[in-house]
Amino acid sequence: MLKNDLYLKALAGESVSRPPVWMMRQAGRYLPSYLKLQEKYDFFTRCETPGLVAEITCLPVDEIGPDAAILFSDILVVPRALGWEIEMKPGIGPVIDNPIASVAQAMAVNPVDAGEALGYVMEGIRATNERLSERIPLIGFAGAPWTLLCYMIEGRGSKDFSTAKAFCYAHPEAAEYLLSLLTDVIIDYLNAQVKAGVHAVQVFDSWAGLLGPDDFNTFCMPYLKRISEEVDGAPVVLFAKGAWYALERLSWRTNAAALSIDWTISPEYARKATRAGITLQGNYDPSRLLAPIPVIREQVKRMIDRFGKDHYIVNLGHGILPNIPVDHARAFVDAVKDYG
Amino acid sequence: MLKNDLYLKALAGESVSRPPVWMMRQAGRYLPSYLKLQEKYDFFTRCETPGLVAEITCLPVDEIGPDAAILFSDILVVPRALGWEIEMKPGIGPVIDNPIASVAQAMAVNPVDAGEALGYVMEGIRATNERLSERIPLIGFAGAPWTLLCYMIEGRGSKDFSTAKAFCYAHPEAAEYLLSLLTDVIIDYLNAQVKAGVHAVQVFDSWAGLLGPDDFNTFCMPYLKRISEEVDGAPVVLFAKGAWYALERLSWRTNAAALSIDWTISPEYARKATRAGITLQGNYDPSRLLAPIPVIREQVKRMIDRFGKDHYIVNLGHGILPNIPVDHARAFVDAVKDYG
Repeated sequence: MLKNDLYLKALAGESVSRPPVWMMRQAGRYLPSYLKLQEKYDFFTRCETPGLVAEITCLPVDEIGPDAAILFSDILVVPRALGWEIEMKPGIGPVIDNPIASVAQAMAVNPVDAGEALGYVMEGIRATNERLSERIPLIGFAGAPWTLLCYMIEGRGSKDFSTAKAFCYAHPEAAEYLLSLLTDVIIDYLNAQVKAGVHAVQVFDSWAGLLGPDDFNTFCMPYLKRISEEVDGAPVVLFAKGAWYALERLSWRTNAAALSIDWTISPEYARKATRAGITLQGNYDPSRLLAPIPVIREQVKRMIDRFGKDHYIVNLGHGILPNIPVDHARAFVDAVKDYG
Repeated sequence: MLKNDLYLKALAGESVSRPPVWMMRQAGRYLPSYLKLQEKYDFFTRCETPGLVAEITCLPVDEIGPDAAILFSDILVVPRALGWEIEMKPGIGPVIDNPIASVAQAMAVNPVDAGEALGYVMEGIRATNERLSERIPLIGFAGAPWTLLCYMIEGRGSKDFSTAKAFCYAHPEAAEYLLSLLTDVIIDYLNAQVKAGVHAVQVFDSWAGLLGPDDFNTFCMPYLKRISEEVDGAPVVLFAKGAWYALERLSWRTNAAALSIDWTISPEYARKATRAGITLQGNYDPSRLLAPIPVIREQVKRMIDRFGKDHYIVNLGHGILPNIPVDHARAFVDAVKDYG
């Protein structure tokens, strides 16, 4: 029995005394305790060592006090399980060896048994739950098919992922093959996470907003819908960053328990566009955590007033930035706890 | 008398046989003829030499055939005129010496007479019009106050401009001082451009979309409104990239003749959100120019069908990418000319 199940209650649409709060990338680079571990272990060692996963996942739980923990991992563990070498280059980010450059290469990608290939993630989940000892729920996650495809074709981060997009425009069948295969793998992967003990899962379509509405309907929507329907035993949260235009469709036509939204979407627009009863998560501008603490506290209160305390999970509109002072992150969480 | 005034007719809301077309950054890095000049002259030499401005502005006119030319220049000529040294670093982009880091530094910024300080732009306009010899209209432009402030505080391009945003959250009065000063300078600058001979002006608020709706209303809207009202003698086009949520407000509460929109906004949404009679410009996804030519042609036709041929200027949703083949850019323009 979880001691604090506010987050799961909000996902289930139950009424709560105050909304739950957590922050995307809350176990990340703004935390001095994380930076110390970053110096000692390389990125994939941190992701693949269950003890480190548990330790890192719990850092913000102890230091900031959110109502949910999110497993420390990376969306690129899936392409890695599919056979790609990925290097984290300082100042550049992830660089993928041999990105897909032809239809033949795309059609040669074979699915894997994600639960097995990513067994270390499942061990990390078990170790984390042990360390959390039922204090708060644990969130699992995966990158969305479109976002993973972007990296697998572009080979690295990009302002526009125009190489990936060009590939999809020129070879729509190969794109569909890859996106379907990734969808299968992601569904297996998330179901394995649920079996290992996560209480909810979030799907990050970080590059959805690079697409216009028509392309979103082609390259994102069908796959997000299928994931939301085929993950069993835990609520699914979808985050299609930047795809404001898809909010209504994601709300009505998928099985998502909640939609995470970025800070360009006003609470009023979000509530109007989505079906009654769906939970919304977000959407504090991560840069606003650089504002003076009294301003943060006031803005958080106002944000909850506007979304309403029910069917709502307080979060940022994207991951926390590396330059956020820890006491500002804590003030954000505390402001939610002091609400009402 | 202009031989081809389709662009001005569309801005005036007159009915046309087909919509006009031009492309943001059409005189840019995708053109081999431009790259040759880039090798010979550094960036600000290209911007400050009237003969080169005229030559570069006319390159796409001769090679691609758009219905309007846009003056070759840069939004950062304004901070430069205000006294900042700016270096164009390969692989990084513009880097500003001594970015504003304190309230004292912000309050010490003094306005300049833009028409005088940027006299070389006016000479460039006259040289360009001579070279264009009334074939098509010439568009002048400036960066919006918010976007210029972003660079002047951040010091360089950034994914989130969080330093600039943090400054504004912590020091709203200093931000207001800077934004007001920039607005005055930009209005003077655009009025000088109109006197020198541009037929319309476009204001680029390239980083508007980094702000949520409330911050947009604080840091962008009042200044864009004032520019739209105080530029005399030529229509004003506003482009608040990424600020989809502000479309309605920009349409109803400014004096803009047209709004330029990015590709996340569907034609139907854009028409519904804006007042009848305002002209819309855009919004082809720049990455889509990497699609096969028959796909481009079909998508352009469909885009015009959806916007309607009147009150519409065909353009991209952002600047053309450096990796676009010239024949794809030409196919885009030709598809518009073949419309209907």
